[in-house]
Parts: sequence; structure tokens; C-alpha cells
Amino acid sequence: MVSCSAPGKIYLFGEHAVVYGETAVACAVELRTRVRVEVADSVIIQSQISRTGLDFEKHPYVSAVIEKMREFVPFEGVSITVDSEIPVGSGLGSSAAVTIASIGALNELFGCGLSLEEIATVGHEIEIRVQGAASPTDTYVSTFGGVVTIPERRKLKTPDCGIVVGDTGVFSSTKELVANVRQLRETYPELIGPLMASIGRISKLGESLVFAGDYSSVGRLMNVNQGLLDALGVNSLELSDLIYSARAAGAFGAKITGAGGGGCMVALAAPEKCTAVAEAISAAGGEAIITGPTEQGLRVE
Amino acid sequence: MVSCSAPGKIYLFGEHAVVYGETAVACAVELRTRVRVEVADSVIIQSQISRTGLDFEKHPYVSAVIEKMREFVPFEGVSITVDSEIPVGSGLGSSAAVTIASIGALNELFGCGLSLEEIATVGHEIEIRVQGAASPTDTYVSTFGGVVTIPERRKLKTPDCGIVVGDTGVFSSTKELVANVRQLRETYPELIGPLMASIGRISKLGESLVFAGDYSSVGRLMNVNQGLLDALGVNSLELSDLIYSARAAGAFGAKITGAGGGGCMVALAAPEKCTAVAEAISAAGGEAIITGPTEQGLRVE
Repeated sequence: MVSCSAPGKIYLFGEHAVVYGETAVACAVELRTRVRVEVADSVIIQSQISRTGLDFEKHPYVSAVIEKMREFVPFEGVSITVDSEIPVGSGLGSSAAVTIASIGALNELFGCGLSLEEIATVGHEIEIRVQGAASPTDTYVSTFGGVVTIPERRKLKTPDCGIVVGDTGVFSSTKELVANVRQLRETYPELIGPLMASIGRISKLGESLVFAGDYSSVGRLMNVNQGLLDALGVNSLELSDLIYSARAAGAFGAKITGAGGGGCMVALAAPEKCTAVAEAISAAGGEAIITGPTEQGLRVE
Repeated sequence: MVSCSAPGKIYLFGEHAVVYGETAVACAVELRTRVRVEVADSVIIQSQISRTGLDFEKHPYVSAVIEKMREFVPFEGVSITVDSEIPVGSGLGSSAAVTIASIGALNELFGCGLSLEEIATVGHEIEIRVQGAASPTDTYVSTFGGVVTIPERRKLKTPDCGIVVGDTGVFSSTKELVANVRQLRETYPELIGPLMASIGRISKLGESLVFAGDYSSVGRLMNVNQGLLDALGVNSLELSDLIYSARAAGAFGAKITGAGGGGCMVALAAPEKCTAVAEAISAAGGEAIITGPTEQGLRVE
């Protein structure tokens, strides 16, 4: 039996603009998906959702991983148990984490010999296969952990402070939001182009502030980034309420993480402020999770 | 006895950026301050606030107007009654409206012979004298009415749709907000400079859309402008709630008007949507006022 885990991620800066080649900064967080694998007579996939065999509807990522890993080492039966702390479908990279943890666990169990680079690449292929399109960010950050600039992949100092995630519980379609932003950009290229560039500039300024450990300024730039996300039309009443409540409770900064329109926001806060920030998020109607950045990507448990 | 009125205004686009020379678009609204004047034995100023003589604390604008108008035609006693529909201190130009209406009324009563241009100029001088600093926008728009680009002073077609103002009831200091934006701009000139330019670009795009009568697109750009105001740090939880509620109720667009941090938001809406938008603003905790653009600036009643 082998057990592996891989983390989710948040964006400190740059979502949406990264689609147009601008720099973003992603940060692995200590919310993990654990995958336990052992040899069995047939394929069994067990998760919070259900217990299935190879099932591309209910367990598309794990099923695709099994199929892919059989190309490296042919195997038949395997029992896979998935256990995740990452809210699903809210921009925290839950699908990347289950994909990377599954690849890692099968890689160990069957001695496929994939390197971390190869695991990240295979993970990205699987996300593309299941979703039709996917950025390599989620799988990369889930594999390697830490704080990483995209697309340059410079690893930054992991911030020594807390992260509070607030889930609005509102469903949003990443595909639709990305399409809406594209349409806005096509309608007003001379306006939205420079806004995308401004987000890229925030990421680059933010990068040096993360290096310097100046979290107060990192938070201030997260707030500016949030305004630009609002300008792109991906904010919502619910997100805005959680964001303003987190800031009022003393967070360094707070913004949407991921596609927006619903899903999650994220606040950066001094460790001693995290409880107050989480309580403020809860009071504003969100589900709050206190976590923090993590250096650790895929790991054998 | 003479009675004059002058309107308040909202910003369709460009507040804050206009401080740095970018284009803004202001729009006179059918919320008016009425000033009735008649010759009396002494100076009597009567308003919702109190009944005083020449009083630079309680009635600074009207008192300054009296003093100034005496330079044109020496007069002694006058009774001035002020009645205003414009919420005070919330970025709707209430001080400009009372100033312009007072100048207009005294100009009529005592035959001072000031032209509209001169009235606007004197009004601006009085605002500077009372406040220490003032943009010429409020007094200009209150004098001439209509939709006007700043600083170019091109007059646009007056939109054929409703305007709903939502007052958060939260006090905010324009001086402080302008100073905060300046400080952010000084800290990150390479970031905030282009954001100011983007707001100016919105005003210019918006200008042609107002000309074309494309209110749906005007509203969409108001929303982009709102995100940039949020990025500048002048949004608040209360403003955001009213703004998102107005949009959800079918407004073309909604944004802060004026300095932000509290004060008022404004929604542009089709006439048949105004009631629903106003109800949504009320339900979200704001005080809603349904009004509309007006061609009429200073007028004798």
C-alpha cells in the first residue's frame, strides 16, 4: 500500500491575465488531497462522491490517471481511495491535486519511475484530456509546492504568514468567465489590453515584495489586483462581501482566487489575525478555511 | 422676490483620475437646490440646517456668496431661503448647487449682470475659498446642466434614461480619499499611472457611446470604471453592496460617484427599470433616489 498527497493552490496575483501571457504568482496551500493505492483484483475508486470502477463520469481524473499509468507499467486491478480537504470546483486546484496525488501514488506502487517533472507533465495532459483545456499552473504547483511565478516558474520564498480561504458556495463556470473576459477584451481591446498588462505588472511588483517578506505591501497589491478583477467583470456580491469583511478584520489583503463569479476568495493575514479573519468571513456568509502556504508539493505520506 | 435653482451632478466616468488631468464625464441630475431671495432689513439665511445671519460656520457657501456679490452691487439686508433635494456631502455637488443657485438669485435680485460663464467662475472661486481646494466641475455643471466632458467641456447628448442614486449614509472625507489615492500613486507610479490613464480612456470611449445613445455599453464601461475605483482603494463594503444589487436588478451599470469610501453610488437604468433598481438599493441598506439627467443648469424658477 502506498499513500501520497498533493496540495491545492491559490493565486496571489494574476489569474485571468495569465491567459494572455501576463505573469501570475501561484502559491501551494496546506490543503491536501490524499490518495491511498493498493493492488486489488479489479479497479476500485473510492471517494467522497462514490465508489466506482473505472468511471470517466464520476471519477474522470483518477480514471484517466489509471489509463495513462498503464502505458508505463501494465497493471490490472488497483484500489484507490481519495480523501480531500480542498473545496471542489472553486479555483483551488482540487482536480490537479487529485490527479497529481494519484499519479504519484501509482508511480510509487508500480515503480513506473516518473520524475517530478514528468509527473507534472502527465498531470497537465490528463487535465487537458478531461477538461478540454487547462493551464499547466495547477498541476505544476501541486507537484512542486511553494510559491511560483507563471509562466517563468521562478520559485519565491514561501510567505511566513497565514492564508484564509473563503468559499462563497456559489457555483461558477470557469469556461464561461474566461469567455466573458475574452469578449470584453475583444470589444474594448485598447482598454482591456492595458488592464491585463497592469495585472502582469502587479505580479512582478508582488514577486519582489514576496521576496522581501513585505506582506503588508503584498496585501495592498492583492487589493489593487482585486479591483482589476472587478473591472474585468468576474467579481460578485458574495465575493465582494467576504473580501471586504476579511480586510476589515485585519487581513493584509484579500481578493478572488481563480476564475471568480463565485467560488473562493483568499486573504493573506498575519498568523495571529487568521482566526479573526475567518470569523469575519463566516459572519459574512462564507465558509472559511484557515490554511497557509506550503513548500511541499507531491509527497509520499 | 427671486427664486433660482441649480442641479447636482454625478460622474458617469472619471472621478479621481480627473485630478491627474484625465478626461471625466459629469452629468447634471434633476436633483435641485432652490434658493429664494428677497430684500430685507438684515441678512437672514434660512436652510434645513438652521436660521442664521451671515455665518461662515453654519452657512459658509451662502455667506461667501453674499460677501462676493456685494463686490458687484453693494447691498445690505437680504433674506435667503435654501431648500435642497441633494444629499449633502456625498459627492453629488450639493455645495456647488447651493452656491450657484445663490449667486444666480442675487444676480437677478440686485441686477449684478453676471453672465453664466461669470457665475460659474465666481462659484468656483467660492468653493475654493470655503473648501481650500475644489475642482471647477461641480460649479460648471451646476451652472450649465447637461452632460459635460472634463476638462474639455464638450457638451454631450443628454441620455434618455434614468439615474438612480444610492446613498450609503456613510460619511467619507474627500480630502482623505484623494490623499490616499495620491499616496498609492506615489508608492507605485508605474502601476497607478497606467490605471489613471485607463480611467481616462474609459471616459473617452464612454463619450462616444453617450453620443450614440448606446446606454447598455455606457453601463458596461461604468462597471469597468467601478473596478478601477476599487483598485484605487476608494470602494467600500456598503458601496459594493448597493452597486451589485443595482446591477442585479437590471441597471445598465453602476458605480461610485464622487470620492467614494462611503457617500453615494449611481446606477444608469432604463426608465422602466428605475423602480426595481431603487428597491434593490433600499433592500441592500441604501437610501435610493430616482432621478435623471437634466439639460437645465441654473434657472430662474
